[in-house]
Amino acid sequence: MPAQPAQPTQSPVTVLGLGLMGTALASALLKAGHPTTVWNRTAAKTGPLTAQGATPADTARDAVTASPLTIVCLTTNENVRALLTPEAEALAGRTVVNLTNGTPAQARELADWAAAHGISYIDGGIMAVPQMIATPGAYILYSGTDEAAFATHRPTLEALADTKWVGKDPGLAALYDLSLLTGMYGMALGVAQAFALIGSEGIPAREFAPLLRDWVVAMTDGIVPGTAEAVDNDQHLTDVSNLAMNREAFPNFLQAYADQGLRTEMFEPFQGLLDRAVDEGHGADGLSRLVTLLKQN
Amino acid sequence: MPAQPAQPTQSPVTVLGLGLMGTALASALLKAGHPTTVWNRTAAKTGPLTAQGATPADTARDAVTASPLTIVCLTTNENVRALLTPEAEALAGRTVVNLTNGTPAQARELADWAAAHGISYIDGGIMAVPQMIATPGAYILYSGTDEAAFATHRPTLEALADTKWVGKDPGLAALYDLSLLTGMYGMALGVAQAFALIGSEGIPAREFAPLLRDWVVAMTDGIVPGTAEAVDNDQHLTDVSNLAMNREAFPNFLQAYADQGLRTEMFEPFQGLLDRAVDEGHGADGLSRLVTLLKQN
Ligand SMILES: NC(=O)c1ccc[n+]([C@@H]2O[C@H](COP(=O)([O-])OP(=O)(O)OC[C@H]3O[C@@H](n4cnc5c(N)ncnc54)[C@H](OP(=O)(O)O)[C@@H]3O)[C@@H](O)[C@H]2O)c1
Ligand SMILES: NC(=O)c1ccc[n+]([C@@H]2O[C@H](COP(=O)([O-])OP(=O)(O)OC[C@H]3O[C@@H](n4cnc5c(N)ncnc54)[C@H](OP(=O)(O)O)[C@@H]3O)[C@@H](O)[C@H]2O)c1
Repeated sequence: MPAQPAQPTQSPVTVLGLGLMGTALASALLKAGHPTTVWNRTAAKTGPLTAQGATPADTARDAVTASPLTIVCLTTNENVRALLTPEAEALAGRTVVNLTNGTPAQARELADWAAAHGISYIDGGIMAVPQMIATPGAYILYSGTDEAAFATHRPTLEALADTKWVGKDPGLAALYDLSLLTGMYGMALGVAQAFALIGSEGIPAREFAPLLRDWVVAMTDGIVPGTAEAVDNDQHLTDVSNLAMNREAFPNFLQAYADQGLRTEMFEPFQGLLDRAVDEGHGADGLSRLVTLLKQN
Repeated sequence: MPAQPAQPTQSPVTVLGLGLMGTALASALLKAGHPTTVWNRTAAKTGPLTAQGATPADTARDAVTASPLTIVCLTTNENVRALLTPEAEALAGRTVVNLTNGTPAQARELADWAAAHGISYIDGGIMAVPQMIATPGAYILYSGTDEAAFATHRPTLEALADTKWVGKDPGLAALYDLSLLTGMYGMALGVAQAFALIGSEGIPAREFAPLLRDWVVAMTDGIVPGTAEAVDNDQHLTDVSNLAMNREAFPNFLQAYADQGLRTEMFEPFQGLLDRAVDEGHGADGLSRLVTLLKQN
């Protein structure tokens, strides 16, 4: 093999917002050799990054004009809107990658604002905690109308985590992000209630954990692809575990939670959903039918 | 290797209740070579099993006196109580393994009734659907005061699925069963809401499924053991994703569900729980703190 060539000059990049996540992002860019300009509302937070080689900017204006690409990661999209609005002119002709968590509607609004000012806007959803940035397994979802700008900056963004482009609708990254995290929250809630239930008899959580982990993983492996197929085919009949059976069984769960001194309120709506499913004639269908019921507002 | 010895005579066993599950159980026992007596309230359901070599009994009395071990699998424990009460004398000195789903309290009541009549009672929870009986990965949880009776009949029970003894409190099998299924229901609910959300923009479920599967599995792998350790140590502080952050982020989820035309009611109680956690001073704690909050009724 030829000797490793000297590292080529990396593209300059700006990071606005140096909270837990922004700091991790800037740090990863510095490690990958990008000239990195940083700015934070509370200026003191630039210190550790400056020590790693970052250039602190005095103002957001100075920051965004230092690089063709600005990555922004604040608490909310409202903060992003407030911060970027006065910088519209300075940002014209440049690219903004917004990694702040938000809704698809918020991302589309920001994209519209950017388009009106000649700014390339890419929305992103970080599927990682700060500790996981630039480690294997972490990825960031991206979407936006200007796929060419994404292609241009992809090598820079790869320094943060694997990149997954999900489409030209700027709301899609947020949609995917919220959908994945919704799956996680459901699982986490089930796991928390499970540990509460097993703990009600004094069984150590770590004794139960391997059983719970294996069970939830096995069920995820079965339920996720099975549900996807049923949903896409709009064919929900099952010969395995239908909604009528689940509806009949579920009062045992609520009863057991109450018997064991647990709160039942997290799972009461689930009983309501099962009841509605059966009442509306879907008793012979599998859990996949719930997807269609959850869509009816 | 020596030639396979002739199969030794297997222990006789009785199955009461030939629904989907009871039929699968009896069928597995027959395949394993056990002389199997079967009974069902609706007698016609014995037909397919008789064709496989089972002996149909005319009455529950005849059925339970045919074997030292009776496995019962009906819709509810109320049905079990009603069916077995008149057979107390016939069952004295024999073992009943009850694989009907129920609560720990129901299992303990049945165990007390059995003890008062000299019947060995073992409660069980089947971690499988009928199609999975006698296939790898399926297991059944067992508990009861008479561990010796379990040891005696374990070789027979192994024909159904792997056996997991969880303790001498007869309520434990149901407790473990409900706890595992609670984890599954939470995951399934999250997955259903996730598919509803991604589907609101017309994205095919099967395109999203691999991402969702991998994400939920990765999160389960992290959250289950992490929560167990935090719960056992009663130490919930985290530097990863604390409740204050989750509480601030969650309104985005409810907003996005509403924006996309989805029902929000499944996850509204979760917002309430996060709010309560932060209001009670647990903002710096991780999701594991929710376990303690769910225990406070
Ligand atoms: N942490 C995670 O695990 C994680 C994972 C995935 C996604 N995210 C998302 O990443 C984003 C940032 O999270 P984080 O963990 O870094 O939060 P954080 O530690 O609380 O940092 C928030 C940042 O936003 C800045 N900010 C807030 N309001 C502002 C305003 N009006 N004008 C200018 N700057 C403002 C803060 O500046 P000051 O320092 O001046 O307050 C700080 O830099 C959030 O949208 C979050 O949902 C986080
Ligand atoms: N199916 C599963 O995926 C699954 C998985 C794990 C655990 N389980 C548990 O296994 C048990 C049985 O489930 P299954 O799927 O076999 O249900 P099923 O197909 O509905 O069968 C129910 C059985 O209970 C009998 N039964 C109901 N009420 C009775 C009464 N008062 N007296 C006598 N017999 C009565 C029925 O007899 P008839 O035929 O006369 O109606 C039938 O044999 C339930 O507790 C269930 O929760 C099921």
